[in-house]
Amino acid sequence: MPPRPSPERSPGATDEASSHVRAALLAAQQALRHAGVGPVIVLLVGPETAARGETADLLNAWMDPRGIVTRAWGKPSDEERERPPFWRYWRTLPSRGQIGLFLSGWYGPPILERAGRTLGKGAFDRRMARIAALERALADDGAVLVKCWLHVDHRKQRTRLESLAADPLRRWRAGKPQKHRLSLHRRVVAAWKRAAAVTGTEQAPWHVIDAAHRNQRHLAVATRVLEGINQALAAPAAPAQPPPAGTRGSQVAVPDHLGALDLSLAVDRERSRTALERQQGRLYRAQYRARERGVSTVVVCEGWDAGGKGGAIRRATAALDARYYRVIPIAAPTDEELAHHYLWRFWRHLSRAGQIVIFDRSWYGRVLVERVEGFAKPHEWRRAYDEIRQFEEQLVEHGTVVVKFWLHVSRDEQLRRFREREATSYKRWKITDEDWRNRKKWDDYVAAVNEMVTRTSTRRAPWTLVEGNDKRYARLKVVRTLADRLKRAARR
Amino acid sequence: MPPRPSPERSPGATDEASSHVRAALLAAQQALRHAGVGPVIVLLVGPETAARGETADLLNAWMDPRGIVTRAWGKPSDEERERPPFWRYWRTLPSRGQIGLFLSGWYGPPILERAGRTLGKGAFDRRMARIAALERALADDGAVLVKCWLHVDHRKQRTRLESLAADPLRRWRAGKPQKHRLSLHRRVVAAWKRAAAVTGTEQAPWHVIDAAHRNQRHLAVATRVLEGINQALAAPAAPAQPPPAGTRGSQVAVPDHLGALDLSLAVDRERSRTALERQQGRLYRAQYRARERGVSTVVVCEGWDAGGKGGAIRRATAALDARYYRVIPIAAPTDEELAHHYLWRFWRHLSRAGQIVIFDRSWYGRVLVERVEGFAKPHEWRRAYDEIRQFEEQLVEHGTVVVKFWLHVSRDEQLRRFREREATSYKRWKITDEDWRNRKKWDDYVAAVNEMVTRTSTRRAPWTLVEGNDKRYARLKVVRTLADRLKRAARR
Repeated sequence: MPPRPSPERSPGATDEASSHVRAALLAAQQALRHAGVGPVIVLLVGPETAARGETADLLNAWMDPRGIVTRAWGKPSDEERERPPFWRYWRTLPSRGQIGLFLSGWYGPPILERAGRTLGKGAFDRRMARIAALERALADDGAVLVKCWLHVDHRKQRTRLESLAADPLRRWRAGKPQKHRLSLHRRVVAAWKRAAAVTGTEQAPWHVIDAAHRNQRHLAVATRVLEGINQALAAPAAPAQPPPAGTRGSQVAVPDHLGALDLSLAVDRERSRTALERQQGRLYRAQYRARERGVSTVVVCEGWDAGGKGGAIRRATAALDARYYRVIPIAAPTDEELAHHYLWRFWRHLSRAGQIVIFDRSWYGRVLVERVEGFAKPHEWRRAYDEIRQFEEQLVEHGTVVVKFWLHVSRDEQLRRFREREATSYKRWKITDEDWRNRKKWDDYVAAVNEMVTRTSTRRAPWTLVEGNDKRYARLKVVRTLADRLKRAARR
Repeated sequence: MPPRPSPERSPGATDEASSHVRAALLAAQQALRHAGVGPVIVLLVGPETAARGETADLLNAWMDPRGIVTRAWGKPSDEERERPPFWRYWRTLPSRGQIGLFLSGWYGPPILERAGRTLGKGAFDRRMARIAALERALADDGAVLVKCWLHVDHRKQRTRLESLAADPLRRWRAGKPQKHRLSLHRRVVAAWKRAAAVTGTEQAPWHVIDAAHRNQRHLAVATRVLEGINQALAAPAAPAQPPPAGTRGSQVAVPDHLGALDLSLAVDRERSRTALERQQGRLYRAQYRARERGVSTVVVCEGWDAGGKGGAIRRATAALDARYYRVIPIAAPTDEELAHHYLWRFWRHLSRAGQIVIFDRSWYGRVLVERVEGFAKPHEWRRAYDEIRQFEEQLVEHGTVVVKFWLHVSRDEQLRRFREREATSYKRWKITDEDWRNRKKWDDYVAAVNEMVTRTSTRRAPWTLVEGNDKRYARLKVVRTLADRLKRAARR
């Protein structure tokens, strides 16, 4: 983006119309912060970078910058490259009550790659479908997307650069980057048109803005942002929309996966000891190879209270190098986490290439405890199946191994373990009234688990249901499964 | 770290002594979380990696893992390399109420580099002095550091590896990494001894633990951690210690820097326009070169309310490419930020190589508003001068350009601007009762600013005091100074 005069310099920024919008914008922004709704995500996209930056400056000048997150993205860092493409955007998403000014945002890379012909039409369209899903997930969560295409006519732009280049004092505004931009101008416009065809949804429409005249542009964008803020204020709760036919909440038969498990499976102490040692050896070697190949692994551990998650996780980590794995125990979210889409707190923990991150409880809480306890509204947990599939697909497409365990025990076995824990001084803390309350809702949880497995067990991110009444058997199965999956991935 | 058997397997982990410690640890951990004090940072350092990982597993098994952050560090990512060495540790520091288990932590790299002879003694000692300062800053803030050296005898370790290598089932526990470790054993011990000489302070002493026998080791470490938690619980508030002689809070004459400024300085509209355009051009080119050379820049903007910070920042950013700068407006801290050392929220915003990050208000709030309003206790803001110098020195040593502005206006000029703002609909929000309150404390702020400049203006991170009664002059000076500093840095 070429440097630019400050917005205050433009006379229009002080004329009556703008001062009205300006005052209204401010009031709306304050209301947005106090209501803690939104966020409002403004995407400034266009062939000519000066317009984007200038407009961002203006909005920062007109509103309280403490409530605005302005971002533009250059080359991805290796930390970004080692995670799915959207990670860099998730990590900078504004929180509720805030406004995000994203210059090009997630449209930047694909449009430039398409303009540079390094991205085929098919791949481009798939990227756009992925973007549409992201924007839908954000919008469903109460975010408002204000997507502005700042249109500049190619001829006008060329003339402008020529006149700048002729002025010794302003020549620096018409350097190589600007000229390169101009050469791509037409292709960028074409790529955007293709993008808009897929991503111009009812929830997140595109606004085409004539960016040739600065004041006009400023006023138009500011007005769009104002509308966006008011929209967020008007709809504080996520819109309750009936799940459309198809994947989202469609009626599928839900088999009794848990009932089908043989909980009598067990291994005797002696066999299990050598077997576990052998599996840990396999896991160790497999993770070593996976690391060499930069394969990341995401492990999800879900299961009943006292189902044996902790013990199983420790049997696995005992075979891993502490530098290359991380266990993320999911406790109560912080206020920063509560102020974002529920998947944000999981995105922020995704590990780098070659690493293993183990989630002790996970995003599935949305369709388990949040569903059963009513923390999430039905339309929220229903659409979560789709959001979770989208999330895990991105991991898998990125080459990440996704391993998901449900540690299952019978209701009687759980009772036995609760009692045992209460009898042991240093285990008592593990048993809370909540555990007893959850236990009362056993059948609701069974229904939730069965539906979760039905809707989110995919070929590349399958659920592994672990028969857990015998701890030794369960731990062995967890370590072996992990070793198998890693070995296969490292071989690819 | 080589894989290891899980702690539960060790008989000792269940004997009476340990079950006592285990129960006590749990109770203490709960108390720590509820009291929200600490954090307790446990550093497990030693020549033999297995012992570290095993001990971390044990502590995770014995306590509630949701309150524990376990970390070990491998090769730094480029995002980490592009920031001062401690950034990677700051970004993972546990918050109050939590326990951090750092395997090797900040001692790992220097000790290994020293053992590998890639780090000279002098450089090593300087790194240790830096570490001592970091640990002091954390301890002063209420953190408790439990630094354990897990000692393993070289001969015993060799014998152990040999017996493992002889067992086909356990051979994988004695692979190349373990053998390499063994070869470095003696040098690692020597390097640690050198480290301990500098970093074994009263606030953060070293505990030498015999790691040969697992149960003994587990019990010893657990006991140390328990003591650490209790220490944190016993001293909820940061220890109020009289600042020692020397830099910290020593009595130096504080000249009236602000009074010495000539606030009549001004430029006329016409001259300023072309001059600003010229300086923006210089800034644009300088930042371009700085980016090429990977030079990062940190800009601090402090000043009176209505001193013109925002306008000056926008004049500078108008000449910058939005992909390569970020403005961080410092608003109220989030609860995640409040739960950490006050510098944590600034560390987390440090930018990557070649980038400019502009702090609109900064860590200097500690010695300005927090001092004047009494949010920080005297011993807190007094020691902050030293902490801030340490922080900025790290930036400078890393090659970052540190530019600090204080935008100064006269008390009358401020009044004029307050009134003007109140008269303009879209500027009224900028004036709050707080601003009027602060204004009443003008003289206290003057004293705080003068002392701040005296104590924190260093050769490589100097303060630039800006005569701000004339906005045009102030903006020009800010942009010119920034261009000068960047140009010089890019030339180096």
